[in-house]
Amino acid sequence: MEKVNLDEAFGSFDEQWAPRLAAELNGQAVKLAKVEGEFVWHHHEEADELFLVRSGEVRIEFEEGDDVLLREGELLVVPRGVEHRPVAEEAAEILLFEPSETRNTGNVESERTRTDADRVG
Amino acid sequence: MEKVNLDEAFGSFDEQWAPRLAAELNGQAVKLAKVEGEFVWHHHEEADELFLVRSGEVRIEFEEGDDVLLREGELLVVPRGVEHRPVAEEAAEILLFEPSETRNTGNVESERTRTDADRVG
Repeated sequence: MEKVNLDEAFGSFDEQWAPRLAAELNGQAVKLAKVEGEFVWHHHEEADELFLVRSGEVRIEFEEGDDVLLREGELLVVPRGVEHRPVAEEAAEILLFEPSETRNTGNVESERTRTDADRVG
Repeated sequence: MEKVNLDEAFGSFDEQWAPRLAAELNGQAVKLAKVEGEFVWHHHEEADELFLVRSGEVRIEFEEGDDVLLREGELLVVPRGVEHRPVAEEAAEILLFEPSETRNTGNVESERTRTDADRVG
């Protein structure tokens, strides 16, 4: 059992929109991501996805419904099947909690697709 | 879809060692707990449990192996079956990620047992 220090973990990589694995449990993963700009529109067929903002702000846009602006220390669950797009006007850091096998771009194949998340540290 | 602000959520209750439900997804729960003092020794037969310290410090003691001291912004996964006891010398706030049905005292029935976590906010 090794603890993870989030400051150190976020300090260990720079790549944006490329989630790193911080922990796995019960078939689920806690992933860390640095984000800035607009991600791709997508959804996850069979995975609910939790966003928790560690620093900065991230706007979650929805194809149907109002955007939700997440500030530091705010979290949101995007249910499976819901088309969404994360957007960060400035650099932000987020934690994701989702099934381990969840692909960052969901149903979409794009240059930002990452199938494996490297473990931090 | 409603976002949860962690500061507001932790501000909405005072009871210690009684987890509140912040979010549910994929059969898992994000729970918030205020803790101080020694909890009971226990384990969870079929649930890995993640501790993430939001404020203060929490020491996770193990029946077999060294304690792990978690400071603010540090997380640890306690695998299923592992006997452990959380201890907080001073008041602390933690997030838990675990299967929704997880009972806080695991295999042990005690005055601190809570079977249902009320939703925050």
